[in-house]
Amino acid sequence: MKIAILPGDGIGPEIVEQAVQVLNALGETFEMEAAPVGGAGYEVSGHPLPDATLKLAKEADAILFGSVGDWKYDSLERALRPEQAILGLRKHLNLFANFRPAILYPELAEASTLKPEIVSGLDLLIIRELTGDVYFGQPRGVRECPDGPFKGQREGFDTMRYAEGEVRRIAHVAFQAAQKRDKRLTSVDKANVLETSQFWKDIMIDVHKEYPDVALDHMYIDNAAMQLVRAPKKFDVVVTGNLFGDILSDAAASLTGSIGMLPSASLDSNNKGLYEPSHGSAPDIAGKGVANPLATILSAAMMLRFSLGKPEQADRVETAVKKVLAQGLRTPDIYVAGTTKVGTSEMGAAVVRALA
Amino acid sequence: MKIAILPGDGIGPEIVEQAVQVLNALGETFEMEAAPVGGAGYEVSGHPLPDATLKLAKEADAILFGSVGDWKYDSLERALRPEQAILGLRKHLNLFANFRPAILYPELAEASTLKPEIVSGLDLLIIRELTGDVYFGQPRGVRECPDGPFKGQREGFDTMRYAEGEVRRIAHVAFQAAQKRDKRLTSVDKANVLETSQFWKDIMIDVHKEYPDVALDHMYIDNAAMQLVRAPKKFDVVVTGNLFGDILSDAAASLTGSIGMLPSASLDSNNKGLYEPSHGSAPDIAGKGVANPLATILSAAMMLRFSLGKPEQADRVETAVKKVLAQGLRTPDIYVAGTTKVGTSEMGAAVVRALA
Ligand SMILES: CC(C)[C@H](C(=O)O)[C@@H](O)C(=O)O
Ligand SMILES: CC(C)[C@H](C(=O)O)[C@@H](O)C(=O)O
Repeated sequence: MKIAILPGDGIGPEIVEQAVQVLNALGETFEMEAAPVGGAGYEVSGHPLPDATLKLAKEADAILFGSVGDWKYDSLERALRPEQAILGLRKHLNLFANFRPAILYPELAEASTLKPEIVSGLDLLIIRELTGDVYFGQPRGVRECPDGPFKGQREGFDTMRYAEGEVRRIAHVAFQAAQKRDKRLTSVDKANVLETSQFWKDIMIDVHKEYPDVALDHMYIDNAAMQLVRAPKKFDVVVTGNLFGDILSDAAASLTGSIGMLPSASLDSNNKGLYEPSHGSAPDIAGKGVANPLATILSAAMMLRFSLGKPEQADRVETAVKKVLAQGLRTPDIYVAGTTKVGTSEMGAAVVRALA
Repeated sequence: MKIAILPGDGIGPEIVEQAVQVLNALGETFEMEAAPVGGAGYEVSGHPLPDATLKLAKEADAILFGSVGDWKYDSLERALRPEQAILGLRKHLNLFANFRPAILYPELAEASTLKPEIVSGLDLLIIRELTGDVYFGQPRGVRECPDGPFKGQREGFDTMRYAEGEVRRIAHVAFQAAQKRDKRLTSVDKANVLETSQFWKDIMIDVHKEYPDVALDHMYIDNAAMQLVRAPKKFDVVVTGNLFGDILSDAAASLTGSIGMLPSASLDSNNKGLYEPSHGSAPDIAGKGVANPLATILSAAMMLRFSLGKPEQADRVETAVKKVLAQGLRTPDIYVAGTTKVGTSEMGAAVVRALA
């Protein structure tokens, strides 16, 4: 089993280091190989996704990814900015199915900005399509406005689109995920306005016929953003397109108040996957040893379960994380009075100890 | 001064009736003329925006709009569904500037699902561009996928786009609104992925040169959705495109816990406007006399201020609304123990009395 380790920028290297130590402590033999990505990739090769890094990612069975991005690359042209590395990996590796659980750990309930009765016990799963939509649709760019009252002026434009097969495959992933949970799936779209959404919705309804044990409902994205704040526990599994998924998964994550805890998985159709924390590269705290490594450690657990065929090892890691929380250990992002504040490497070491 | 009264569907007629009574109690002479719209328009003419209704809306100085939509029209083809009426009015009347304040009334603080310290005193203004973006861009529809791995399959598609003049005019509206408030403007986009967004952002930066007294910052839509939940009071004025504005304004409204209180205004470049509550048509409670008319009454206040040149009358109405809240009157949507539950017409009558 070969794992590509792509630490990236900002806090990426420190948090990935802790996840690697957890993987090393499991008593399994994994081949691991690291490569630079994002700003770090740009520094060594002039491109955020160097050829050698892409090659390694393609060869590997799974990818453990830290985070990319730093203000110092803001003035580069878009194609060279760190985020292009993650977009490129998703597209080149066909990682179309993004799993983003939003779970409120009982020990961290206070961290939420929502009232405890609204969020306690929150456990929802957002499944975001990750390789289609307006993220990648062609044509796009800046052109002369072809018609209407602004004809002749410059305009920026993009193409939103979903092909039938693209919607079908994410629909199957979502219905199957719902079957393993509470069997309720909410498909989020904007079918009252967008043709792409109506097309998406019609296919969801069609694929639903193969999963009669799952209850399917449809919600407009504006209402979904509202319901997430008003009654988030009503959701079980949510499936949506790339753009709405980007927004909704961050909104859902923010409900928990501890995005430093939330992992993610991005899978292709053979369960090869890229695993990364849901949070960003946080350049403001990079190198200070205070970043929370738990989202990355939990991403490694998802990797063990989905791509490496080691569900019992995944359970071990997740149990160890719960144990350190129960012990009262907290990185600064989740610290509250009465708990014990620890740094990145202390937290990682505590998880390793808790594996025993 | 001529006001077009478009009550629409669901609870629309009952709440608009109360707003009309408030307008009639001001001691001014307004010419008011009503017309059917949405499902009601479809019933009489076969189209949700009948020609006569559009003609009236064009002639009027301002439009007071209730709400449109009912489940019974769900099976109609999209072009005939009630929502098309509001989209058509926005487009035909060039109502490009949508003002959606999200205000937490101190008396209603408990209604929020967020902790009081996070939302108390919340007062933010979302300015949404309303006639461009992927809402109206051409081409759109279902076609044969022209390239890529799904070539030859059917695909749904839409065009996202913004012309330079379209962005400039909403930028000016937003900077000027910020000048009247705390002089902070956040422009929300997804410039790390979308060409339309990068184009939008560049123009915001350019227009900012004319408003050096306003502080401008930029936020990606996913982060904005997150920050709204984590620290909503950090925002003053937010400006964004049609699609992101749809999502973000509903998310912001939901923070207050009382969307039945929130008005909106949609203006053209001559301050002619359409005024409507931020909530929907709520067909489940239509005709029961329990709907909250305050969002519509407050929309009428915005109309007095923005389109009818009667700011002192607008103040009177807003003060009257605060008075009835202070008296403890509550419709069921905002009711909590210890207050007095009233119906739609009692609430309207109380506002009329409080004007005195
Ligand atoms: C960095 C950015 C391009 C990316 C996205 O929009 O997909 C990020 O927000 C995410 O959700 O992984
Ligand atoms: C009804 C719908 C077309 C509309 C929109 O998306 O603009 C509504 O959600 C709104 O925000 O006014």
